[in-house]
Amino acid sequence: MRTSIATVSLSGPLTEKLTAAARAGFDGVEIFENDLLTSPLTPEEIRTRCADLGLTIDLYQPMRDIEAVPDEEFARNLRRAEHKFRLMRRLGTDTVLVCSSVSPNAVDDDALAAAQLRQLADLAAEYDIRVAYEALAWGRHVNTYDHAWRIVEAADHPALGLCLDSFHILARGSDPKAIEDIPGEKIYFLQLADAPQLAMDVLQWSRHYRCFPGQGGLDVAGFLGHVIRAGYDGPLSLEIFNDVFRQADAATTAVDALRSLLVLQESTGVHASPAPVVPTGVAFAELVTTDVEPTAELLTALGFTRTGRHHGKPVDLWEQGEARILVNTGPSGPAARRDGTVLAALGLESPDPAAAAQRAEALLAPVLPRRRAPGDVPLSSVAAPDGTALFFCATRRPELPSWTEDFEPTGQEFDSSAQEADGHGIHHIDHLALTQPWHQFDEATLFHRGVLGLDAQDSVDVADPYGLLRSRAVSTADGSVRIALGVGPGPGDDLGRPQHIALACDDLVTTARRFCEAGGHLLPIPANYYDDLAARYGLSEEEWSVYQKLGILYDRDAYGTLRHCYTRTVGRVFFELVQRDGGYRGYGAPNAPVRLAAQRAVAF
Amino acid sequence: MRTSIATVSLSGPLTEKLTAAARAGFDGVEIFENDLLTSPLTPEEIRTRCADLGLTIDLYQPMRDIEAVPDEEFARNLRRAEHKFRLMRRLGTDTVLVCSSVSPNAVDDDALAAAQLRQLADLAAEYDIRVAYEALAWGRHVNTYDHAWRIVEAADHPALGLCLDSFHILARGSDPKAIEDIPGEKIYFLQLADAPQLAMDVLQWSRHYRCFPGQGGLDVAGFLGHVIRAGYDGPLSLEIFNDVFRQADAATTAVDALRSLLVLQESTGVHASPAPVVPTGVAFAELVTTDVEPTAELLTALGFTRTGRHHGKPVDLWEQGEARILVNTGPSGPAARRDGTVLAALGLESPDPAAAAQRAEALLAPVLPRRRAPGDVPLSSVAAPDGTALFFCATRRPELPSWTEDFEPTGQEFDSSAQEADGHGIHHIDHLALTQPWHQFDEATLFHRGVLGLDAQDSVDVADPYGLLRSRAVSTADGSVRIALGVGPGPGDDLGRPQHIALACDDLVTTARRFCEAGGHLLPIPANYYDDLAARYGLSEEEWSVYQKLGILYDRDAYGTLRHCYTRTVGRVFFELVQRDGGYRGYGAPNAPVRLAAQRAVAF
Repeated sequence: MRTSIATVSLSGPLTEKLTAAARAGFDGVEIFENDLLTSPLTPEEIRTRCADLGLTIDLYQPMRDIEAVPDEEFARNLRRAEHKFRLMRRLGTDTVLVCSSVSPNAVDDDALAAAQLRQLADLAAEYDIRVAYEALAWGRHVNTYDHAWRIVEAADHPALGLCLDSFHILARGSDPKAIEDIPGEKIYFLQLADAPQLAMDVLQWSRHYRCFPGQGGLDVAGFLGHVIRAGYDGPLSLEIFNDVFRQADAATTAVDALRSLLVLQESTGVHASPAPVVPTGVAFAELVTTDVEPTAELLTALGFTRTGRHHGKPVDLWEQGEARILVNTGPSGPAARRDGTVLAALGLESPDPAAAAQRAEALLAPVLPRRRAPGDVPLSSVAAPDGTALFFCATRRPELPSWTEDFEPTGQEFDSSAQEADGHGIHHIDHLALTQPWHQFDEATLFHRGVLGLDAQDSVDVADPYGLLRSRAVSTADGSVRIALGVGPGPGDDLGRPQHIALACDDLVTTARRFCEAGGHLLPIPANYYDDLAARYGLSEEEWSVYQKLGILYDRDAYGTLRHCYTRTVGRVFFELVQRDGGYRGYGAPNAPVRLAAQRAVAF
Repeated sequence: MRTSIATVSLSGPLTEKLTAAARAGFDGVEIFENDLLTSPLTPEEIRTRCADLGLTIDLYQPMRDIEAVPDEEFARNLRRAEHKFRLMRRLGTDTVLVCSSVSPNAVDDDALAAAQLRQLADLAAEYDIRVAYEALAWGRHVNTYDHAWRIVEAADHPALGLCLDSFHILARGSDPKAIEDIPGEKIYFLQLADAPQLAMDVLQWSRHYRCFPGQGGLDVAGFLGHVIRAGYDGPLSLEIFNDVFRQADAATTAVDALRSLLVLQESTGVHASPAPVVPTGVAFAELVTTDVEPTAELLTALGFTRTGRHHGKPVDLWEQGEARILVNTGPSGPAARRDGTVLAALGLESPDPAAAAQRAEALLAPVLPRRRAPGDVPLSSVAAPDGTALFFCATRRPELPSWTEDFEPTGQEFDSSAQEADGHGIHHIDHLALTQPWHQFDEATLFHRGVLGLDAQDSVDVADPYGLLRSRAVSTADGSVRIALGVGPGPGDDLGRPQHIALACDDLVTTARRFCEAGGHLLPIPANYYDDLAARYGLSEEEWSVYQKLGILYDRDAYGTLRHCYTRTVGRVFFELVQRDGGYRGYGAPNAPVRLAAQRAVAF
């Protein structure tokens, strides 16, 4: 279906908004009145600009407080409307949005509303314009779509129809099923918006917290299904009032926006993207460093072995069990130059790497250029919203070339028998924790869900000494891939926040001890924490005093327990060692404030 | 009364919080459990640190989900509580906050709750500890203060009393009057918090949006009156969960916090500060500039005359009617060095400058040091939260020395007769628009209300192309002093945002024309704006085409009309020319998005 976006959803002056929408691939736009008023371009120039960019102007919006008012006021409203109709002819758009009145002068009289809207439509028809009437969720007398439809039906005018907006309908908890009873040709326009589930005043909720479909908690896909079944075949248009997007880069937001419509159409079955290929594990994590020594020391102390060297690039492969870390000392980007060591890429073990890459590309994930030498194993990668490169890989599977073939053995091999003998050591990467750009936290979740097929957990707040952080985990159903997406308390605070790699083991106490014996340092945790731990969980002194000595934190959820501890930070990166027992599902969030304060307190 | 603050209200690690509270002048603190758990200091060390800083530890908080639970669970809770009582002895504090249970295991049984709280109090008494029971607004069964009191009364234990929190009581809309029926000695603790009036889930509201008394919309002063009349004489303690304060500088927040308690005590009549001395006008605005020429050109084109030169400093006085602008080319601070020209100070015409300064100092406004030469007129000044120096002055009044006496006449005088002859020209400073630090927007309002005795209007959102700005006006009842406090969309966005001086005239069209004829340039406004203006207000083409030619904006409110236009920006500063008619009260906020977009569009 055709896609459209309201200019209010994007930041910047009108021309920037239009360019961003066109470059992302939208077919059309809704022109929000304020964007026209503040633009130095004349309506004719805006029309030409849109045409040059390949955009149609699908809607002009909004007209307010038109109907169900005393005669004299309505006469004034008609004059005002005619003025706008002339403007719309200059713009070259044929549909205007009329919001249900919020005026204190409006009366609760459907017959009057219908009669006045009929007059408005008569006037509009003279200009070849259609009027799309929309029930605002906070409309004074008309605030549900079925009420708006009764009025439009009673007015019975060929230039009068409905505009449906998923937010206005779902936020009030209205049942959208009866949309199917409305003739499709009377639905003139469809606006799609999601929103987080917030128990708050609906007007404030709408004006500040709307988000793209799939980023919030409303069933926009189910809603769209009803509208499609009614026979609607106009554009799918996004109208998002969001305080964060207003500040974000318009080009980025526009791509995120269009991706949300692709995922939405897939969910509703109107448009099929290549099927998701859910990853089955983390093949590797790649560090880029300007300062290799501390990184190598840390990996050695953790029990990793440097098993390979890339045949054409300065990249080392370190292994332990199924945990693989690449250390890249090649030309570094600005992040590594600033921070010394950064987590730059993830390899995702994929059942079908080529299909996974196709899916990602179809969902507008930026495909990363790759300098591939003739002998290299083919490997596709895309950029996540935070810039992390995601590689779709196969690791030592007979049916596919393995990325590990690009690495020449160093002669050292990881000795798994020693590990198996005493049960300590690291098995695999348990999860990655990545800081997201502040303006794209919701988008990051949608990206990982839509592009990678991961499931999202609820967002949690975590108290850092200098502000609340938010964290939201995305994972496969079996936990084989887990990524904790984090965001700082404000824009600008995302850069430089640590990223971390959590490594899974079966016996944390032994593994942590070995690490310390090998010269590693674990983050010291305040004694007060252990005192409280004893009180909360009734751990024996023997148990908690071992934890205290090492710096091991402890958590329980409904399924099991977590023991975990942290290494020192190298550049932007630190490691966590985790032991999950009994099917523990979380990430130790209750302990995160303790960890954050400890990281700030100690420079070690 | 004694003042106290919960450590959760301030940012940073515990030691920073304690230092900030002590330096601001608080008598005590509530230790929030999480701050203790994350601190590397032992309880004994925290106790010593507080003692060294002159702080008492008035409360340890919180204990949760204690009461009205099955026996076995309660036994576990008692063990946990005993652990905390031992900790409190080490800390040297004797009161613990117990929040009403939110546990799904809690039953709706007041007798059981009372019996278990009695047992808890028995145990507490062994440690010389008192239990302060508080009804959380979202408590599972107990969520009102009168319900909590019934339980405490039934438990009837000398170590069990109430904690009252203004937020929990006022946010639910409970009538606080019946607090007066509770014996004062059974109110063990009082927590004070305000909050903006938001229709939202009370838990989210409480956890993220609390603010200091006087900054929100709750009647905390009335509430405090009831508690005082009940006979409470313990500390007034602030417990503020606020996402912004969590990120702000603790030292600044602590001063703002204590000021809020001073203003609150004054409102309630428990403590009298020196009486407010409300200013009667703006004596002057002072620009500091590293680049005097464009500033002088602008003032000249606006019709100002350079009438005086400070006898000891490189400061010029420019006058027109009652509008006075100082241009300071002396040693400049970092702001002027960065931005070239900044609005650095305001002179407020004061009925009693000395008393106004005393009031400001008593309310913790930072008194600014002043390099005064022997012959200078005495002039006191304090710093507003945004760093603007506020001078309390008298201008050419017979009974007091006038600050203008420090200026030697240049020989040029402003010719008011020419102005009077044709009615154009500037009369006085209509208002100032100042950008506030992002972390102190609410505090800036309280400062201007409390310290200067101004009234605050509602906050409004204004759409800039790159984010929503907020603006809140503070003014005297007669409008003789008006300041629009603005804030950008995020932290870091406050620096460098323009400030402006609005100048009042009676005939804007003529005044604007003269300005242009004198070589001044007004901000060009898009034609689309005028097209819409005609439709909205039915202005004649003659009228709006003049406005369009000059760049004059137009607004109406319930009282009258506003015409206004803008000069170009010099450094960080621009001027607005305004003509208010018929008692218009606003600041042209509906036109602000147009102005903001135009300022971004045009570099002129």
